[in-house]
Amino acid sequence: MDVLSLTYGQFQTVYNVLSFALASMIATTVFLLAAMGRVLPRYRQAIIVSAIVTLIAAYHYWRIFNSFEAAYVAVGEGDPLAEGRTIMDVTYALVAGEGFNEGYRYVDWILTVPLLLFEAIAVLALAPLVRRGLMLKLIPAAIAMIVLGYPGEISADTTTKAIWGALSTIPFLFILYVLFAELSKSMRTQPEQVRKDLNGLRWLLLATWGVYPISYMFPMFGFDGPDAFVWRQVGYSIADVLAKCWFGLLIYKIAREKSRYDSPQFAEDEFKEAPSSMGGDRA
Amino acid sequence: MDVLSLTYGQFQTVYNVLSFALASMIATTVFLLAAMGRVLPRYRQAIIVSAIVTLIAAYHYWRIFNSFEAAYVAVGEGDPLAEGRTIMDVTYALVAGEGFNEGYRYVDWILTVPLLLFEAIAVLALAPLVRRGLMLKLIPAAIAMIVLGYPGEISADTTTKAIWGALSTIPFLFILYVLFAELSKSMRTQPEQVRKDLNGLRWLLLATWGVYPISYMFPMFGFDGPDAFVWRQVGYSIADVLAKCWFGLLIYKIAREKSRYDSPQFAEDEFKEAPSSMGGDRA
Repeated sequence: MDVLSLTYGQFQTVYNVLSFALASMIATTVFLLAAMGRVLPRYRQAIIVSAIVTLIAAYHYWRIFNSFEAAYVAVGEGDPLAEGRTIMDVTYALVAGEGFNEGYRYVDWILTVPLLLFEAIAVLALAPLVRRGLMLKLIPAAIAMIVLGYPGEISADTTTKAIWGALSTIPFLFILYVLFAELSKSMRTQPEQVRKDLNGLRWLLLATWGVYPISYMFPMFGFDGPDAFVWRQVGYSIADVLAKCWFGLLIYKIAREKSRYDSPQFAEDEFKEAPSSMGGDRA
Repeated sequence: MDVLSLTYGQFQTVYNVLSFALASMIATTVFLLAAMGRVLPRYRQAIIVSAIVTLIAAYHYWRIFNSFEAAYVAVGEGDPLAEGRTIMDVTYALVAGEGFNEGYRYVDWILTVPLLLFEAIAVLALAPLVRRGLMLKLIPAAIAMIVLGYPGEISADTTTKAIWGALSTIPFLFILYVLFAELSKSMRTQPEQVRKDLNGLRWLLLATWGVYPISYMFPMFGFDGPDAFVWRQVGYSIADVLAKCWFGLLIYKIAREKSRYDSPQFAEDEFKEAPSSMGGDRA
């Protein structure tokens, strides 16, 4: 499944979407670390882990960006900028011996996906036994899901892809069962707004994680070549930004709400309308 | 609209102005993160977001700077530094196949412009419903403004540019309406000095954002080639420094004033003249 040549527009699309994902990961990491002190101590573990997830992803997007840049070289017949030609006539060819390394994505996922599930549970500050029970189900399942997907990803054979894809789907469905059935018991005791946000978190996870198997199945539907390559890079990048940055910011929002609910002092300091916004008749 | 060759002076101007913008973005990011603790907790969200805006811009200026440096190569007949020639005789030619990537600016704007409006509202610490109402108007309008501008920016056709430019102007005018008409209601309850600074903030936004459409329209007035390229880079860079660094520092000033107004303890700790500055006759 080699993509030997890209048009100028295809190259620029992948280039800019990878850069967008990298910028989003860096910005979210710094935001979460800077904002960590704005939740009660018991919720800071979840915020730190969210920042570590986007940091790991930033590292991998930096590698993926550099790998993509090094893998393609601009070519054109004769001088690409000769009379009558524009930059749009440039095409990009795969450099002999250089490959665009997709392995970075799997290394990223094997580190970040268990951590994403960890932060979702950590922010609830459940009783230790309940938390432990949920983690012991979710984290091994997340690792199994990614490890089982990899042999199919690197295989060119449709049957091999289908078998490993099906095996990988089993732990994915188990994760969904735990999040949508078992977690609901623990959610009943949470404040109203937190329940709403947790529900949003689950659906965000389902919607963004759904992008990966769809992209995985492209070659099984005969969708291959440069267009499939560009769509896969764009899809993975946007899914990663939503599943890591947006997800982390939702975790932060839940931690803020829970802090407000837990501590009247916190609610007063952080959420009370400022006297300076309520009119000039301050005594 | 290819700029195939730049003089020594043109190249140096763009090179140095991009470096100036990068330095300003890094410095403002670190300043705001370091100074975050010097406002009351309820205003820190606005300061952190201001720092994230300049951080994202720093990332993109670093990329733009590198892209510019890689896109041009020094050329001269024979040895450019031979007898009788000076450094001023060097010219810079576009490297075949390398393009100076303007896409970075749009990726930057799509991330930072909604955040700039977010910080301007967040620093007011308004009642949640009022704040939410303003954000729901400003942020989608900001995204629409940038997305609608892009097809015109990359098109070489004057009519296409004019159509997309006009479409992009609609959300821009809506943003101005919200900031100059609707926001004024919320401003009435703010302390006198805060009202003055908020007014300054609105005019800074109008003045700096005005640079972008002017630069966008250069080719429509037949102003093209190397001079237009240099003016556009200088204009965008200075507008970005004002719209992000200066804007962020103004947000910080407003947060300081509001903190002083809200808390007598804060006013005492931060603003009271120090005993050590009041002469030696302290009892």
